[in-house]
Amino acid sequence: MEKGYVHIYTGNGKGKTTASLGLSLRAALSGKKVFFGQFIKGMDYSELRLEDYLPNFKICQFGRDCFIYKEPTSQDILKAREGLNYCEEVLKSGKYDLVVLDEINIALHYKLFSVEEVIDMLHNRSEKVEVVLTGRNAPKELIDLADLVTEMKEVKHYYKKGIEARKGIEF
Amino acid sequence: MEKGYVHIYTGNGKGKTTASLGLSLRAALSGKKVFFGQFIKGMDYSELRLEDYLPNFKICQFGRDCFIYKEPTSQDILKAREGLNYCEEVLKSGKYDLVVLDEINIALHYKLFSVEEVIDMLHNRSEKVEVVLTGRNAPKELIDLADLVTEMKEVKHYYKKGIEARKGIEF
Repeated sequence: MEKGYVHIYTGNGKGKTTASLGLSLRAALSGKKVFFGQFIKGMDYSELRLEDYLPNFKICQFGRDCFIYKEPTSQDILKAREGLNYCEEVLKSGKYDLVVLDEINIALHYKLFSVEEVIDMLHNRSEKVEVVLTGRNAPKELIDLADLVTEMKEVKHYYKKGIEARKGIEF
Repeated sequence: MEKGYVHIYTGNGKGKTTASLGLSLRAALSGKKVFFGQFIKGMDYSELRLEDYLPNFKICQFGRDCFIYKEPTSQDILKAREGLNYCEEVLKSGKYDLVVLDEINIALHYKLFSVEEVIDMLHNRSEKVEVVLTGRNAPKELIDLADLVTEMKEVKHYYKKGIEARKGIEF
């Protein structure tokens, strides 16, 4: 059985979740089984509909219907904790070839759970699982552990011209 | 009609084509029409199969079945030129909401066509079309013109450990 590697997509530029979606698509189209877990997010994203088209892609959200504003609420903490427990099982189960933990770095930033818990979860996973962690400000402990790290660096962003997030492009 | 913007995904890290694939997926799932043109590449990529699953996604390749090694061949030049002409029509037609020109920066690097031709093509496009340009070493003229630029910066890559490209992950 092939060993799976750990990828991190971090940085302040557009393309982190998007790249992990593209990777999921490529994997699912080649016959791999993909689990896509979204921390923090619970909004109606276009990607939720991929399940209707590709049989071997599953997506779950572990967030509220809006981003965290200043301080996490008790609901944020509860949902993130449920998500972590769920993903731990998913990673151990050996049922998936690729597991994406989208925005897990943001969940760590808000201390919704600890980096040690994430490292334990990664160590206890089924060896063949390829894992992708996304979100800004990836902690150093995870960067040290990862096999591949790309920093998506913002060179220019149209948000700064006042252009708002658009359906089908940003979500 | 909404105006479409120009994105560039450049840099030496993993995630450029992958992010443009993720963006295409999100757009297609939200009902937008997507054209994905691959310059340089003519290999059997998993993404080619997305057409079978999503009706409003179309992909075309304008490259040989291997990367350019040192110097482009006459076939590389011919295929890239055909691709440019084809994409010019696609961009003008107004039939698509999102057009990806994958690895066009690499085609420019090998001087398969000129940056002025690409700029003209972008200026002559149907105004509503969102365009994504990918590949390392995006020329300054295109960065100046773009509305959004992300540099995918390699922090760590498993290629350096000798791990080869794997189906469903890299292609």
